[in-house]
Amino acid sequence: MKLIRYGNPGEEKPGIMLNDTYYDTAALGEDYTNDFLSNGGLERLATFIRKEQLQPIPADARLGVPLANPGKIVCVGLNYRDHIAETGFIPESEPILFLKAMSALNGPFDGVTIPKNSQETDWETELGVVIGKKGTNINPEESMDYIAGYILHNDISERAYMKKRGGTWDKGKGCNTFAPLGPWFVTKDEIPDPGQLSIWLKLNGELMQNGHTSDLICNVPNLIAYISEFFGLFPGDIISTGSPAGSGTGRMPQRFLQPGDIIEYGIDGLGTARQQMREYQS
Amino acid sequence: MKLIRYGNPGEEKPGIMLNDTYYDTAALGEDYTNDFLSNGGLERLATFIRKEQLQPIPADARLGVPLANPGKIVCVGLNYRDHIAETGFIPESEPILFLKAMSALNGPFDGVTIPKNSQETDWETELGVVIGKKGTNINPEESMDYIAGYILHNDISERAYMKKRGGTWDKGKGCNTFAPLGPWFVTKDEIPDPGQLSIWLKLNGELMQNGHTSDLICNVPNLIAYISEFFGLFPGDIISTGSPAGSGTGRMPQRFLQPGDIIEYGIDGLGTARQQMREYQS
Repeated sequence: MKLIRYGNPGEEKPGIMLNDTYYDTAALGEDYTNDFLSNGGLERLATFIRKEQLQPIPADARLGVPLANPGKIVCVGLNYRDHIAETGFIPESEPILFLKAMSALNGPFDGVTIPKNSQETDWETELGVVIGKKGTNINPEESMDYIAGYILHNDISERAYMKKRGGTWDKGKGCNTFAPLGPWFVTKDEIPDPGQLSIWLKLNGELMQNGHTSDLICNVPNLIAYISEFFGLFPGDIISTGSPAGSGTGRMPQRFLQPGDIIEYGIDGLGTARQQMREYQS
Repeated sequence: MKLIRYGNPGEEKPGIMLNDTYYDTAALGEDYTNDFLSNGGLERLATFIRKEQLQPIPADARLGVPLANPGKIVCVGLNYRDHIAETGFIPESEPILFLKAMSALNGPFDGVTIPKNSQETDWETELGVVIGKKGTNINPEESMDYIAGYILHNDISERAYMKKRGGTWDKGKGCNTFAPLGPWFVTKDEIPDPGQLSIWLKLNGELMQNGHTSDLICNVPNLIAYISEFFGLFPGDIISTGSPAGSGTGRMPQRFLQPGDIIEYGIDGLGTARQQMREYQS
């Protein structure tokens, strides 16, 4: 299934995509919360959409984040070989992890605000893994059982805040609007192998990222196991698996986002998203 | 006011401390959510406790986190001069920021789990500032207006995960149970100056941390302004302002937490908390 949420920010209602059309599912009486994921909501939703007559959503409806209250986004840094090469970082012996502030969540077609003093706002298309079951110290052989589905994520990053302002990367990762998620939350059954997906991004129509999840250094099952050594994983948590080469910081010359720029990106089976950059306004 | 929440994990009800006794306030019909903070809930609560006959809570009730759904905890690293000296870090020119995973939240008297492979679990008492009003790029002269109140935080840290496992500090800060908050959320009016508070911690009865918030390198109003340059601040967000000298990593010889150890700590006006360490169990 491809789950969506639509409506004005903060007032989103649940829906679903069937045959390229978005339908409302609010009559099920459940939003796509973390509890919904952990207590059989996806099975109830599957039954509901089989049995009920569904109404299409308004054609001009805004799409929001397709999960109601994700608990955290654990991001993986430098997890594609080609992206490491372009950034000039020396690879760490273990995956780099950092957290995205949840106040950065943004709809998949909403505007992205370039922070007030930003010079180096950059894009990073990523495969997000949505957790469906609670766990710590998860065995890699069992870790795929902890997945509820997948989601497209743009891990927008301010490179100067990350690297030139002291401390950890978190400073450059959690600005408002820096975490567009969606358009869809795609259930696991629709993605037979998360390591066999094309991942791409265009800036103003020009292809910038053109990668493949088979190039992940630490693959999805190993990431789940590794991360769960440090963080408890809970239904609704998202693991953002890293971005392939082609971000603005790795280009020669470097290219960072300016107001008016449009980025469009996608992953096989997870849809496409599109954001226009806008200036900060207090 | 000193707000509490009590009951079994995940089922907490709101309450308040008056004259050293805890009373239930569930009859107000509101939990202490982020919306409650932003839409006048504290004023309604003040009226409620003046007018209503309150019932004491059961004497053996567990205390939970006194805020219902804090959005994020932005932590400040190495913000006391004496703590920098003991860790041997070279001070950064700007405050170090990192994020605590919200899945690490823990009640003020609950057990703390030492992670499965941990060798260096450590304590850090901190003054937490609870945000009451949304803002970005906040002016330092106005930043105290953004405070709803204060809270006691133990920023429990696994030093090896922070420093020896690659990547950012987040790995050693977000393990399950690593963010005990409370006992109370104390409203701003009760703390005339957050820069004039004693802060202490005992391990098995022995004084380990004995600091004062006047030693903060970046003080509370400047921290709010600085952090809001990077992260949007929202009602219910917490800024954890750093810990004074005396953590286990800074001692000679180093001393890290073991199952059975008991830590007790407090800050003037914010109460005391106490946690016993326990072994990881799958």
